[in-house]
Amino acid sequence: MRRPTIVDIAKAAGVSKGAVSYALNGRPGVSDRTRERILAIARDLGWVPNGPARALSPNGRVGAVGLVVDRPAGALAAEPFFTRLVSGLESELTGSGTDLLLQVTADPEAESAAYRRWAAERRVDGVVVVDLRVDDHRTDLLRELPLPAVVLGGGSGGAEGLPCLWTDDAAAMHEVVHYLAALGHRNVVRVAGPEHFRHTGVRTAAFTEAAAEAGLDSAETVHSDYTGDGGTRVTRRLLAHRDRPTAVLYDNDLMAVAGLGVAAEMGIAVPSQLSIVAWDDSVLCRLVRPSVTAVARDVEDSGARLARMLTRLVSGEPVHSEESARGELVPRDSTGPLSEA
Amino acid sequence: MRRPTIVDIAKAAGVSKGAVSYALNGRPGVSDRTRERILAIARDLGWVPNGPARALSPNGRVGAVGLVVDRPAGALAAEPFFTRLVSGLESELTGSGTDLLLQVTADPEAESAAYRRWAAERRVDGVVVVDLRVDDHRTDLLRELPLPAVVLGGGSGGAEGLPCLWTDDAAAMHEVVHYLAALGHRNVVRVAGPEHFRHTGVRTAAFTEAAAEAGLDSAETVHSDYTGDGGTRVTRRLLAHRDRPTAVLYDNDLMAVAGLGVAAEMGIAVPSQLSIVAWDDSVLCRLVRPSVTAVARDVEDSGARLARMLTRLVSGEPVHSEESARGELVPRDSTGPLSEA
Repeated sequence: MRRPTIVDIAKAAGVSKGAVSYALNGRPGVSDRTRERILAIARDLGWVPNGPARALSPNGRVGAVGLVVDRPAGALAAEPFFTRLVSGLESELTGSGTDLLLQVTADPEAESAAYRRWAAERRVDGVVVVDLRVDDHRTDLLRELPLPAVVLGGGSGGAEGLPCLWTDDAAAMHEVVHYLAALGHRNVVRVAGPEHFRHTGVRTAAFTEAAAEAGLDSAETVHSDYTGDGGTRVTRRLLAHRDRPTAVLYDNDLMAVAGLGVAAEMGIAVPSQLSIVAWDDSVLCRLVRPSVTAVARDVEDSGARLARMLTRLVSGEPVHSEESARGELVPRDSTGPLSEA
Repeated sequence: MRRPTIVDIAKAAGVSKGAVSYALNGRPGVSDRTRERILAIARDLGWVPNGPARALSPNGRVGAVGLVVDRPAGALAAEPFFTRLVSGLESELTGSGTDLLLQVTADPEAESAAYRRWAAERRVDGVVVVDLRVDDHRTDLLRELPLPAVVLGGGSGGAEGLPCLWTDDAAAMHEVVHYLAALGHRNVVRVAGPEHFRHTGVRTAAFTEAAAEAGLDSAETVHSDYTGDGGTRVTRRLLAHRDRPTAVLYDNDLMAVAGLGVAAEMGIAVPSQLSIVAWDDSVLCRLVRPSVTAVARDVEDSGARLARMLTRLVSGEPVHSEESARGELVPRDSTGPLSEA
């Protein structure tokens, strides 16, 4: 069964090879009517688009993986996490000529729609899932479609049947809380990310537990949205309080830098009157003054590991959940003991 | 000419429909040997991968556009520009179900290789080109392939035959220089991005010209690499100089924030002893203290416009180069007159 060529289509349509090429490649050079006629004839003849390239690859794979990021654009814009993750993914994918399809969606429904479309149109061989939520319908969907998937987050047992790269946030949280307690802090507030993210709940439970262990007087968690503006608002409220905290732990670097700005604006000295810790280190934490103590994670490495896990999964190899290196406390100039002023 | 179905392939291979499905979809469930045999039979029968989905779309298009970012991962990680551009692109593409293929490459050769592969494998309908270089071989390559392309940058006449979205950097530069001169600054240094970017040269020429117009005594341009570390190093050198500048203009926000940190470290008060301006506003400039005066551009809007231009180009409509809104000076707390201390 010989495949039809452009010459066959040109003959059948009574047009030049060039016109067929323009029509098939979606380029200008033929009228819409001619284009439609040529495409109809190509379909009738069983023409396979783009010859060898879009035909079956030897292993039946597409050579692309997908990543949907479902966070508001404003939350993404300045947070290095996302770009670091993409860099890590790319470091593995580029070498094998695997494309990364990226979607930034505005809500979970749009994210699910992207997975459905990618699966139906066979756009990707698999996906990397981030920002695991408390009631996460994506894991069910991905198992049903089925679309091979690896998850960033989850726990040692995986993420609802999907292999995951998880990290022991609880252990890192204990380290941070005991460090602040050792510096003499008794009233610590944590400015967390949105409650619907699963890692937020894990960290909240660990924060509460560690605070009790360390004998803190007060250890409240308040929720914000990872944006600079959100961090600014909540910090202003916290620091305006009569019984204000002496240490604040932020769930991302951007909110921590925003908090540092509010302290400066309100004339509260860091660290002699207020200690600040960021969860997730980044160049921001190093650049600002005072530099910000942070819980550092190797996000690029996580991206690379997720890409390798997904590649193995797509190849049909067994893939087990893996633990990534846990966050490491990097003390800088934003934390210290309270000094009696 | 009826297309072969999974049933045909299963019969010919003497296996179940399920096994064929596993093999064709690159999923686990069949041995490698069986997979290879099924794929060989599928190819022999002229099976079209993934049925209707990967066959011709009605307009002969793939439904995907590509973006290659050829900057070191470290330079990308904290600079909001890239994420803002992607957000803007996505805001237009998502609605039409168009995928964005992203590659982060380590050198121009890898970027060219990505374009060649995308064109050969028909992975994308077109590409958005960023970071136009002085001797840019990509424009030639894209015209040759041919792969429809729109360029961010360039000038009113386009970018070597490709339609572009350009901005009048020279006008914005004149505004910044005259503003600093009006504040009384006579010794201004500009910390620019790499010389091989074309917009760097445009800004350098405008900076020199505006400085002469405004009667500055000294207006030097030094080159760095857009990273925080690069900004830190060059600022430390500048401020350690006996005849140090009283105002520094940085070509991106990250270097400006780094410069602010160095000033704090060296005990140089901003703005009373040193004014700092960032080209490209971002949440960073607003969050740090003092907040950083910046040249603001609507990067999200540029992304959306580039996506619309590329969509029209791919549809065969005529596309002309467009001018985007020029950068606007947003004065904040990092600029002011020198005060005699």
